[in-house]
Amino acid sequence: MLDALFKPKSVAIIGASNNPLSIGHIVLQNLLDHNFKGPIYPINPKSKYIKSFRAYPSVTDIPDEVDLVNISIKNTLVPLVLEECGKKGVKFAIVHTAGFKEVGEEGLKLEKQIVKIAHKYGMRIYGPNSQGIQNSDPEVSVYANFTFVPMSPGNISIVAQSGGVGETLKLHLYRIGKGIRMYSSFGNEADVSMNEIIDYYGQDEDTKVIMVHIETLKDPAGFLEVANRVTPKKPILALKTGKTSEGTKAVASHTGSLIEQETIADVIFKKSGVLRFHSQEDMIDAAVAFSNQPVPKGDRVVIVTNTGGPAIIAVDECISAGLKLAELSSQTKEILGKLVFQEAIVSNPVDVVATAGPEQYGGTVEALLKDPNIDSLLLVFVTAPFVDCEGIARKLGEIGKASDKPIVCQVITIEKWAEVIRLIRESGIPVYDFAETAARVLSAMTEYGKITQRKAPSFKKFEIDKSKAESVLSRHKGKDKFIPQDDVFKILQCYGIPTVTTTRIDKEDELEKAIQKLKYPLVLKVDAESIIHKTEVGGVAVNIKDKASLQAAFKKMARKFEKQKPGFILQEYLEGGKEVILGAKRNEGLQPTLMFGLGGIFVETLKDVQFRMAPLSEEDALEMIRSIKGYAILEGTRGEKAVDINRLIEILIRLSQLVSDFPEIDEMDLNPVFAFEKSKETVVVDARLKIVGA
Amino acid sequence: MLDALFKPKSVAIIGASNNPLSIGHIVLQNLLDHNFKGPIYPINPKSKYIKSFRAYPSVTDIPDEVDLVNISIKNTLVPLVLEECGKKGVKFAIVHTAGFKEVGEEGLKLEKQIVKIAHKYGMRIYGPNSQGIQNSDPEVSVYANFTFVPMSPGNISIVAQSGGVGETLKLHLYRIGKGIRMYSSFGNEADVSMNEIIDYYGQDEDTKVIMVHIETLKDPAGFLEVANRVTPKKPILALKTGKTSEGTKAVASHTGSLIEQETIADVIFKKSGVLRFHSQEDMIDAAVAFSNQPVPKGDRVVIVTNTGGPAIIAVDECISAGLKLAELSSQTKEILGKLVFQEAIVSNPVDVVATAGPEQYGGTVEALLKDPNIDSLLLVFVTAPFVDCEGIARKLGEIGKASDKPIVCQVITIEKWAEVIRLIRESGIPVYDFAETAARVLSAMTEYGKITQRKAPSFKKFEIDKSKAESVLSRHKGKDKFIPQDDVFKILQCYGIPTVTTTRIDKEDELEKAIQKLKYPLVLKVDAESIIHKTEVGGVAVNIKDKASLQAAFKKMARKFEKQKPGFILQEYLEGGKEVILGAKRNEGLQPTLMFGLGGIFVETLKDVQFRMAPLSEEDALEMIRSIKGYAILEGTRGEKAVDINRLIEILIRLSQLVSDFPEIDEMDLNPVFAFEKSKETVVVDARLKIVGA
Repeated sequence: MLDALFKPKSVAIIGASNNPLSIGHIVLQNLLDHNFKGPIYPINPKSKYIKSFRAYPSVTDIPDEVDLVNISIKNTLVPLVLEECGKKGVKFAIVHTAGFKEVGEEGLKLEKQIVKIAHKYGMRIYGPNSQGIQNSDPEVSVYANFTFVPMSPGNISIVAQSGGVGETLKLHLYRIGKGIRMYSSFGNEADVSMNEIIDYYGQDEDTKVIMVHIETLKDPAGFLEVANRVTPKKPILALKTGKTSEGTKAVASHTGSLIEQETIADVIFKKSGVLRFHSQEDMIDAAVAFSNQPVPKGDRVVIVTNTGGPAIIAVDECISAGLKLAELSSQTKEILGKLVFQEAIVSNPVDVVATAGPEQYGGTVEALLKDPNIDSLLLVFVTAPFVDCEGIARKLGEIGKASDKPIVCQVITIEKWAEVIRLIRESGIPVYDFAETAARVLSAMTEYGKITQRKAPSFKKFEIDKSKAESVLSRHKGKDKFIPQDDVFKILQCYGIPTVTTTRIDKEDELEKAIQKLKYPLVLKVDAESIIHKTEVGGVAVNIKDKASLQAAFKKMARKFEKQKPGFILQEYLEGGKEVILGAKRNEGLQPTLMFGLGGIFVETLKDVQFRMAPLSEEDALEMIRSIKGYAILEGTRGEKAVDINRLIEILIRLSQLVSDFPEIDEMDLNPVFAFEKSKETVVVDARLKIVGA
Repeated sequence: MLDALFKPKSVAIIGASNNPLSIGHIVLQNLLDHNFKGPIYPINPKSKYIKSFRAYPSVTDIPDEVDLVNISIKNTLVPLVLEECGKKGVKFAIVHTAGFKEVGEEGLKLEKQIVKIAHKYGMRIYGPNSQGIQNSDPEVSVYANFTFVPMSPGNISIVAQSGGVGETLKLHLYRIGKGIRMYSSFGNEADVSMNEIIDYYGQDEDTKVIMVHIETLKDPAGFLEVANRVTPKKPILALKTGKTSEGTKAVASHTGSLIEQETIADVIFKKSGVLRFHSQEDMIDAAVAFSNQPVPKGDRVVIVTNTGGPAIIAVDECISAGLKLAELSSQTKEILGKLVFQEAIVSNPVDVVATAGPEQYGGTVEALLKDPNIDSLLLVFVTAPFVDCEGIARKLGEIGKASDKPIVCQVITIEKWAEVIRLIRESGIPVYDFAETAARVLSAMTEYGKITQRKAPSFKKFEIDKSKAESVLSRHKGKDKFIPQDDVFKILQCYGIPTVTTTRIDKEDELEKAIQKLKYPLVLKVDAESIIHKTEVGGVAVNIKDKASLQAAFKKMARKFEKQKPGFILQEYLEGGKEVILGAKRNEGLQPTLMFGLGGIFVETLKDVQFRMAPLSEEDALEMIRSIKGYAILEGTRGEKAVDINRLIEILIRLSQLVSDFPEIDEMDLNPVFAFEKSKETVVVDARLKIVGA
């Protein structure tokens, strides 16, 4: 419960001073400027008064209860004052002071120390190295933060890992006259966590939209859990930055090298229905719409305009953002036909032309709102000097207040018509400067609409032989290593994942016996722990058509890899299938990530792969497959038959089951898997599995 | 010469009235409000005075010379007044009036009529259905336009096909206090053309940046010519909208179907060095920087910040926009080490920390400007309440005025520090709301830097046998058709483009003779004008290994296509090459467009193709090849050797030469072309050529 943090009944400021440039002074001023609804106690052992407030030498001298303290004194003095706060029964301490974990080993030690002190007294630490919190709730009105953007009530709550980014988000809401509900930039996250804060916002009835800025997910599993709980009720908009600074974790397999921090964040967002944005501006623009507009039930948008060109831009942008242009019902067309001027165009976009007044423009919007073929409205409105623009705005405002479909608007105007913007915004219809923005916002809202409407996923559990797989795996337990391919194949078979017919041999004289079980043409592959990319080093010979060629290939390879003392895999050579790649990667504290892509160049060069988190539902698996750019290849091009997509879905789910069952599997690569049309089985041709030691 | 349009010595307003909602009144008011530097003559046969001006019944009644008239009377009355204007010796007539070409056949007739009248008198028509023009030159100060965004002097000139888009562009410059030079939204373009206007802006010494909004290029060749002339001197920023409304032209070949209107605009922009933007906001943001900042000499950017998070966003965005983070010289590091606070981070981004004052922040920027490893600077500046923010701004302003490297800035602040923004902007450093914007702007400037620095292209002319190719082509002249493959191959050979060894046969008994010249394995293909996509209809048999299989394949195919009475192509079957596709498409009035891409799925599904306009320079051809997403495939993956890129460049240039030599070639497809490593020749395996009738 973070009530005493976000709704403190009283605040003490340790480090308050009369120096207007000090953090303590600024926090005091911010609390005052925003009419904090409780008592404020400046703490300063040297001054008797801070501004007009009686100052106390220590929190222990305060005669009343203290919920929250703000601390901005020297880092080394923090432990001492925290002891006093603890004794006083303070509930939360916002530590603004820097010089902790972020400066290295010594700082980390100090940070651990202060958390320990706090917990001893049942107190919580917010920070250190943190900006603070805000809550615009008129019953509280707390601005316990040293930043400068003025606060006014609203329903958007913000939590930002970076204070600079948080400030930017607040600033742009402020500039368009939009309030916020709560704000928080939590610094080093030593105790009170981002996830707790999101959870708190999720439970706050007056928060309608949550904006999150993330640099690193400290507790991905906790985030997933909280987000899963919150997103069905209200949208979480996320900006994840630091996309390029986090280097690729150098691991050997394809799956490993592609699944980076970025990917984990992405699969968590997808799994939990968090809307990811890639710029601050896009996130702010969307938040404004979410804050007042209903969520669209579908993706059919209608554009209404009184000027041609910007509507064309709206069309371009809606289409490229994945929306569809609604087809007006014949009834709507009839109504509009009677309503608008002769020069107007009753189509989509509906161009009511610049001479349209309140009756034409407003009436058109009213008629469109009633059309069952329409899910959302994008208005373009230029204040033509020769019509009653305020009248139009007033009409739109009235309509906006009552609408159960989202309406967004681009207004082209200057300060002379400020009332136009005010009237429209007052109704809850967001006003943007550009048609492009309005279109992107509708696309984000439509995406969230899909999230809230998605059915309970269907999780299939296949009959598998877990204990046999376990016994194969157990042979290799104890250290981090890749296990031999024939064992990987055995494990796959236990989970009902078909593999190509294969035999393992160690010496040339085993060839004779091995080929009894196989049909030409064959493939010969080297199999050794130390050889990861076999093809590159000449460790694969394909399309071997007879015994003589096989013997020659074996001799050559045995000579080549003499030093590695390898085994060899002999398997049937398949032709004509489509190469796909499936992968999995363990995530500490989370379910594993699954990967799907087309093999070869598609995964290596074009990085055309999809990731989702286990357990995979049927919907997840289908979406993964459909979302790759090269999906058409699987559907069959130039008269080819489609591959059996249902088989691929099944194998993905079986793989998800396998890696979920065995947390010791660090990563797996089924590469390639040959997918064929329905009449022929999809089979794994090569596979690698790395386990982690106990 | 458009001087009398953009610098009129006098303006008459036909349709001026005392009704403040009339176009004529608004134009009059706009001229007055902006202190037009010449006489204004309202024309109105019914009123003696319009505002305080003496009105004239007709232009012919005006006692003095008239350069420009603005006409906003009923469309059917326009011809009559134009006759009068012509007699009076008016030089330009801005026709605001709508109801011309845009309303259909009748309107088009009227439009042609008014142009004819004008030309009879040596007068030019601007419009009709046009907004008007503006010129902020203090010597002229003409606002002959009925829009509302106030005008102030600047060096950005705008020409917009859509008035609504033009108004949006003006509006956002106005909002940040940025003036414009000239403005123009030209309506139906019946006479004065967009290209003339761009040319005029190009010649105007006080225009430093040109912004263009295009929906359709009426005269692409003219645009190319003008743009080629202008872009070496000043940047042309273009927004081309209507990307989705223009349907794909349904033509049979791959090349044809991919080369749409959009592509033509794109190749023209590329050829002439026009910078294309995909949103109004991006274009405006860039224009602001171009207007005052020097063009960067390279792509190495340094980020300076006093707050961490936004700088991380700047890094993400710079990298994804193709910029490089500069590596500071050791000398710079040494200087900064002494200058900044201990907590500061001397790296890239340089984090001077929030406590940095003018000396630290300003000094850092000064030192970085001197570093030869740095081409451009991106500053992030939050007005921390505890430092001298105005001092920092003043310092940055001083530095900005003298800098020969571009500096762009994100400032996080509120109105309290309005002076900070004013001081920075005054120096010419653009101030943006978001780090993302600043990064994108630098990327656009860097792109223009490359354009201005590009060397004269090297055009190679190969020795070819044009007359022989001509004689082959001439056999098919006279109608629109695809010519037989063996003739296409002959033409390619004339231009030194290697083709696979091929024989054409018509009857089964010719097989015997044909195979004498060929080596197995073979490919048998049907060859008939009516069969475009042979593979899909079973018209191709590959990898035929012996005579028996060949005869069987022939019988089957002959039976299958009996009705079409086809010929057959027998050619050697190649294995192991990389499939690429080359194409060309004729452009009416322009040089043809060339296409390059990887074959198969890459062209069909991923649309991974590049287009450039003939004639191709070596640089063009290399850039085309390198720009495809699947380029790594040509470079060789997993230990394969690279294909011979120089051979591909040569074939592209030879194809460019071929289609440039024969304007009757409507489209060509070399698909597939098999590219091999250096030791083996790259050859065309299949090709189609469509000619247009005389």
